[in-house]
Amino acid sequence: MGESPIWEQVGAGFVQVYYQQFDTNRSELGSLYGESSCLTWEGQQFQGKTAIMEKINSLPFQKIQHSVTTHDHQPTVDGSVLTMVVGQLQVDDDPVMGFQQLFVLKNMDKRWICMNDMFRLALHNFA
Amino acid sequence: MGESPIWEQVGAGFVQVYYQQFDTNRSELGSLYGESSCLTWEGQQFQGKTAIMEKINSLPFQKIQHSVTTHDHQPTVDGSVLTMVVGQLQVDDDPVMGFQQLFVLKNMDKRWICMNDMFRLALHNFA
Repeated sequence: MGESPIWEQVGAGFVQVYYQQFDTNRSELGSLYGESSCLTWEGQQFQGKTAIMEKINSLPFQKIQHSVTTHDHQPTVDGSVLTMVVGQLQVDDDPVMGFQQLFVLKNMDKRWICMNDMFRLALHNFA
Repeated sequence: MGESPIWEQVGAGFVQVYYQQFDTNRSELGSLYGESSCLTWEGQQFQGKTAIMEKINSLPFQKIQHSVTTHDHQPTVDGSVLTMVVGQLQVDDDPVMGFQQLFVLKNMDKRWICMNDMFRLALHNFA
């Protein structure tokens, strides 16, 4: 069996680390972001590690559990790794909700940094 | 009122053109892709305009209608535009389904080309 391509290994590894860290101690996610990183969280925009971590730390719940349904990865022409996640999450004792998230990962100083992060809950009004 | 940033205009404009074209005559979407473009469609990978259009044209339905719920956009450090769409679609007379899709748009020869495209239906098994 051949190994999966490097961009797939990088993306899949990031997904595992990110959600494990988010669910156990999200205040330590800061090491995954840089000063130029952008987060769009439910339409709100944040730039830079400090602003991003302020947002993540201020989310109003005690506990959260993510469950990843699918994760897809692609290389970009600029050497980044593009990752799209579809999953479900539960905060505190609320009902389970669907979510989607994307990440752009870039290798800087031999570390993979999350340069772009977009998150949306899957809220639809089905007819 | 100020204008929205260029990357937001580019992303929002692409979303409008892409889904309108997809729903009316998807065989003409090829002009939005290039030879290095990548598509991941429900986990299947395709590279290059020809392979991407073969996939899109072979999708097994007569009619489709997309409805965009949210679209978010960010600039990347490499000058591309990153777009995430959450929406609903209906094919033929099937039930409405949720979907998510992301695009990376790059300016090449004064045209915005879709370099990366990932699509997933929102299929979860809610407990």
